[in-house]
Parts: sequence; C-alpha cells; structure tokens
Amino acid sequence: MTQDEESSINQISFTWPKGFYNDGIKIGLGTVDKKDFGYLFSQVPAAAAGTYTTNKFQAAPTKLTKETINVDHKLQAVILNSAIANSCTGAQGTKDAHTEQQWLADALNIDTNLVGVASTGLIGAYLDMDKIKAGLPKLQPKTGDDVSQAILTTDKKPKQACVQVTLDGKTVTITGFAKGSGMIHPKMATMLGFVTTDAAIDGDLLQATLSAGVDTTFNQITVDGDTSTNDMVVVLANGMAQNTELKTTTDADYDTFAAGLHFVLGELAKQIAADGEGATKLIEANVTEALNPTEAQSVAKAVVGSSLVKAAIFGDDPNWSRIIAAIGMVDATMDIDHVAISANGIPLVKDSVALPFDETMVSESMKTSKVTIDVSLNSGTATGQAWGCDLTYNYVKINASYHT
Amino acid sequence: MTQDEESSINQISFTWPKGFYNDGIKIGLGTVDKKDFGYLFSQVPAAAAGTYTTNKFQAAPTKLTKETINVDHKLQAVILNSAIANSCTGAQGTKDAHTEQQWLADALNIDTNLVGVASTGLIGAYLDMDKIKAGLPKLQPKTGDDVSQAILTTDKKPKQACVQVTLDGKTVTITGFAKGSGMIHPKMATMLGFVTTDAAIDGDLLQATLSAGVDTTFNQITVDGDTSTNDMVVVLANGMAQNTELKTTTDADYDTFAAGLHFVLGELAKQIAADGEGATKLIEANVTEALNPTEAQSVAKAVVGSSLVKAAIFGDDPNWSRIIAAIGMVDATMDIDHVAISANGIPLVKDSVALPFDETMVSESMKTSKVTIDVSLNSGTATGQAWGCDLTYNYVKINASYHT
Repeated sequence: MTQDEESSINQISFTWPKGFYNDGIKIGLGTVDKKDFGYLFSQVPAAAAGTYTTNKFQAAPTKLTKETINVDHKLQAVILNSAIANSCTGAQGTKDAHTEQQWLADALNIDTNLVGVASTGLIGAYLDMDKIKAGLPKLQPKTGDDVSQAILTTDKKPKQACVQVTLDGKTVTITGFAKGSGMIHPKMATMLGFVTTDAAIDGDLLQATLSAGVDTTFNQITVDGDTSTNDMVVVLANGMAQNTELKTTTDADYDTFAAGLHFVLGELAKQIAADGEGATKLIEANVTEALNPTEAQSVAKAVVGSSLVKAAIFGDDPNWSRIIAAIGMVDATMDIDHVAISANGIPLVKDSVALPFDETMVSESMKTSKVTIDVSLNSGTATGQAWGCDLTYNYVKINASYHT
Repeated sequence: MTQDEESSINQISFTWPKGFYNDGIKIGLGTVDKKDFGYLFSQVPAAAAGTYTTNKFQAAPTKLTKETINVDHKLQAVILNSAIANSCTGAQGTKDAHTEQQWLADALNIDTNLVGVASTGLIGAYLDMDKIKAGLPKLQPKTGDDVSQAILTTDKKPKQACVQVTLDGKTVTITGFAKGSGMIHPKMATMLGFVTTDAAIDGDLLQATLSAGVDTTFNQITVDGDTSTNDMVVVLANGMAQNTELKTTTDADYDTFAAGLHFVLGELAKQIAADGEGATKLIEANVTEALNPTEAQSVAKAVVGSSLVKAAIFGDDPNWSRIIAAIGMVDATMDIDHVAISANGIPLVKDSVALPFDETMVSESMKTSKVTIDVSLNSGTATGQAWGCDLTYNYVKINASYHT
C-alpha cells in the first residue's frame, strides 16, 4: 500500500455501513452461558464474495455458503451460530444447513440464494433444529455488535475492525468482525470472518479483491498450523453509499477501496493471531529483499509457524539460530551467506553469522505483547509479512485437558 | 517388506560388523560432563552413502561429508563431536571441518577423501581446535559403544539397532546408531545417524538403497516440524563379510540386505521420535487404502505432525476430529465420505462420521508409551507410516527456558 492510500483510510470505532443490521441472542445450543445464535442482513441485496477452507472435510454450512455465493455473487443475509460446527455430520448436516437457509429466507421474505449459513463449534455434533426454529423469530434488526459476540466460542474477545474511505466523493464504511483462536477446545472448528460495506462494487471484482486481500492477511496467520473444516471469510457490499459502482481494477477509486478492505482484513487477522490459544504475544515477521512476494510470504510464515521459534519467544529468548533454521527450510531464493535477522529492531545476524549483541537487552525488549522479527534475504526487492503467536504452557494445557 | 524378508532378519544385541572399531572420550568441548568426541573407522575402505539435511543453511561438517562421499562413494573413518554444531560459522567453520578431516586422515595414514566429519550441538559456536588436536591421539580402536554415547547432546539415551542377515551364505551384520531429540536445547543442531555393515555392496547401489530406506524411515519422523542444519545419515559397508558384492537391485540377495538396512533405519528413527523433546509417548500413524505410497506417507506424517493431535494424545484424548482435520489438510486423494480412523485398534470414525465409542475405554488404552492411529482413505491399496511424539508441558519448558 502506498503512503497515499494509507492516509486515505480513516480507522473509526465500530459502526455498521449503511443498511446493515444484526442481532445475536442465546438459544442454548451449547453448555456455555453466552450468545450463540444470530444473523446479519442488508436492507438490499449485496454483492458478495467468499474464501473458504481448503480442508477436504469442508463443513456443511461452509459448502452451502460457497455454493450460494457462487450462483451470482449476491447475498442479503447470513444466519450464524456458535457451539456446534455442523462439520463431519454427513447427510443430516447438509439437510440442517439447507433448512436453516430456508427458514431465514422465509422469515425475511427473500430468495434462499441470498442467504449464507455459518457455524462454528463442536465438530461431529448435530444442530438442535428445534432451538433454532424457536430462536429465529426473536432476532431483531439491531445496530449493536451482538452478532460479533454470538459467533465467539472461547475467544477471549470479539475481533472487530472498521474504516471509512472516500470513493467518488462518497463516504464508504468497511466493517469487519471475526472469531477464532485455534481449535481452542477439543473438537472446535474455528475461523469465521465477515466484512460488510456500503460500497457499490461488482460481485466478481469484489471476489477478486477479497481473494487477493486474504492472501496477504488471513492466509498469513498461523496459530498451530492446523486448518479448520469451517474456515470462511465473506464480504457483503450493498452499494448504499451510492458511489459509482466499481467495475474494474482500473477504476479511479478502486485502489482506495481495496486498500480499505485490505486494512480491515489485516486488522482482523492480527487480532485472531494475538488471541491464539494460550498466546501471550503476537509475533510479526517482516521479510524484505526477497525475489518475489510469494517467497517473502512463505519465509515470513515459516518463521511465525516454527514451534521452536514460538517457544523461544514465549521465553523471551532471542534465539536467532531457530529463526535461521526455519528460514532455511523454505523453498525460496535466498543468499545463504548474506541473510540478516533483527528482533524488535535489534540486529542479531548479519551475513548469516551472529553479531555480538546484548542478550539481556534483546530479551528485555521481548517482554511485550508484540515481538517483531525482521528478515532480509538479500535476493531482490519483494516484501512479505506473517503473524503468529507464542507457544505456551497454556496451549498444551488447553489442548490436552481432556480429563479436566 | 514381505513376511519372508522379515523372517530372514535376526535382531541381535549391539555388535559391530567385522572390521569396525570406534571410541568416544570427553575432551570438554561443552559444559556438560559427558563424552563429546570420538571416531568410527573400518579396517579397510568401505562403500559409503549419505543423505543430508535439506535446510539451506547446511553446516560445514555436513557439507564436507557430502562432498567427500560424492567423490567415489567411499569412506574409511568418521570424526565426530557433540556440544558444538559448527553451523552458521562462516569461512572459519569450513576451515575447521577440513582441518579435522586432515588430522584424522594423518593419524590413520589414509587419504583425506576417506574421512567424514560430523558435529552436533550449539549453532553459531566455533570448535576448540586445540582440544580436538590434543584429544585425537587418545582415541583407541575399541569395540564398545562409546562413539554412540559421544554424539549425544541431551538425548535421554543412545539410539542403537543391530541385525544380522544371510547373504550368499555369509552372515552380514548391520549396526546403526543415531542421536537427536528435536533441538532440545537452545541452538542445538540435531540429528545424526550412522549405519555400519560388513556387507559387500557397490557404493552407488548403497546410496540408492539408503535414499529409498530413509524416505520411509528418517524422513517419516517429526518431533516439531523443524529441520536442523546438521542432519545427516551415513552408511559404511566394508565388505568384510565376504559375500559376493551386491551390484544391482536384481541380485539374488539384494532384497534381504535392503530389508535389513531398512529395519535398522526404521528402529533408529522410531527411537529418535520416542525420545523427542519432552515426549512421553511414541505416536505411530498407519495409513492404508491410499492411492500411492507417497500420499499414504504424507497423510501419516500430517497426523503425527499436528500440534493439536500431539497435545490431545498427551492428554489421552481420542480426539478424532483433530485427526480428520489433519488428514483433510493434505493434498492427497481421499474418499471424503468414506474415511475410517482407529486409535489403538478401536474404531472411532467410519464413513467420515463418528462411531459411538466408549471414550473412557479408548482414553485408558492411550495411557501407554506408544499410541497407534490407523487411517483408511478408501482410495487404493497403498500404505504408509510415520512416527512422532506427544506435545507436552516439558516441550514448552525445554524450549522456552532461556532464563533458567
């Protein structure tokens, strides 16, 4: 993003774009005392785009939402729940997802092809359709952030991001929310992200913009390297900001919109990484002087994905040798005699050999909620980033605590 | 391996093949009170083969041994040390490795091209060449297992395997030793494996046999997904068993030799996985009904490599949903509606949906030093295996304990 594009993005407190309403309530799908059911809808049909888990065991709601959006890249509403992921539930699960879709379409008097479905929670458990049927009439068109709470499972807090940009003289709002922090409970299926905007944009262009944006944001975070069966990111753009509809990447305001969307996706992704299971720190890896952006991103993701690097950062250990070992595992172009590494801005390695540095000082600098690792590959001009979290006793505890 | 091949392999207690001698002594390269320096040699030049880390930051001794073996696939001796990995040590490290090679060649009065060099320990630290020079004359041609102790760093025990097979009417001994349990200390560079045999076999054929054997053994273990800069497996075959030299894979006794070597490689690999840092359990994944062996191995390795599966097994949790999620991440052919999973022989999943099973009983069955996960992909007849270990509090403690 250029300086110019960045400065045209105003980050604001949580506000919905024009025409978007939501609700989140408790209907008791799970055992935890929290909101677990909700919806999101737009006054008018919105251009829609989605990206979905690449896990082969895609959950029923994920599959259905993908199919629905693919019809003509339009959605007007999404029905959501936590507690039960409706994943690995066979034919019954598929039927339940379709029933939910139909029920919300009927309640809103819109076409079923305008309704998305999203579930997160226990894998292998079935939805209690009676509770959903009874809960549906209780949903009201509100303007708070209830839906962003209703999709949480054991996330410590909601993930939200909101910006405004000016397109064609009109103020456009882009608002996102997400959930996910690894499979924090046994059998939890995990990551969901939603972005709403009142921008007017063609559905295919929105899809291309989302896919490109997700590549450098959601696809660049890792908590534990495990990909859930329910992951999905969906964007709805309802056009109510009344800017001239964006149709191609060469339109005057396209770059501004794309930068705003990218910012929101990036903020949500970082919030998920920081709230990774058991995490005490966000780790950001910035790779520079790579041959191309893909290789830069691969190297960045390898650094934040290494168990040894993650454990070292939990221990405030400026362990450059684990970082260089993680870098060397990647199939990317690198000048193996001239790699440089810094932690929190302090140079640790130059020309692939350790520099003299004050370990205590570097270690002290790592006692923060965010640790930054900079890597230079001396092989080009491309850059890439990735985000992860430290590996802690609590990660093991959370994921091994079957008997507690 | 066929039943027939397996039955022709006799596992025996630790014994060197004819003509191999070794020693291991303490010269004080590190701070730990243990043997840290040694050698291995054969009365006569041996056919030699090696496989080496794919990490781009290959350590100086690893690089030198590779170059040396590649000259004409012959070695007669190896000089080894623990405590210092001689990795990320630049030009000085390369010079030191060459000096070690020259010194041992001079001491044994053999060509430098017959001497391999292996180091394991701290990355980024330099060898104390004075101590090595002073230690060299103290090494004696012994027949105990000292060298297998001298290469250990913080392994809990030596890894050893020994079998005898009959080739051409002659008894052939195949004896291996290895070290490695993750990068158990900050900056430890890790895995080394050596196999000696008195079989007569051509060097190129030995290389092909080793490479194939490593693919399904050492390359199928994972402790934490991090690949060291010093990994290497070397085989020496000195021909002193006086069997007719094996020259092609179609030779009558070739399959028997290959099966024996494979058995030794497999045993060493499993011992390394079981002694993974912090580990309390060996995890074995057996994949069946895959399209081809490569895909079967990929799926098996994904199962034993998943942090969530590893943590669940530490907690005696028969968490099939994490196993199916790990399987679904692999780019392999699978019948997504007909996958089956068992733990310790108890069926958990059939047709990709959970079976009713007694969780307490399965959990009780997992309270052992080895947990077996069987996966059927319903897509062919190929099989594959992989081995790993559980993810424990001690893994985090060991790798985060910079300040202790």
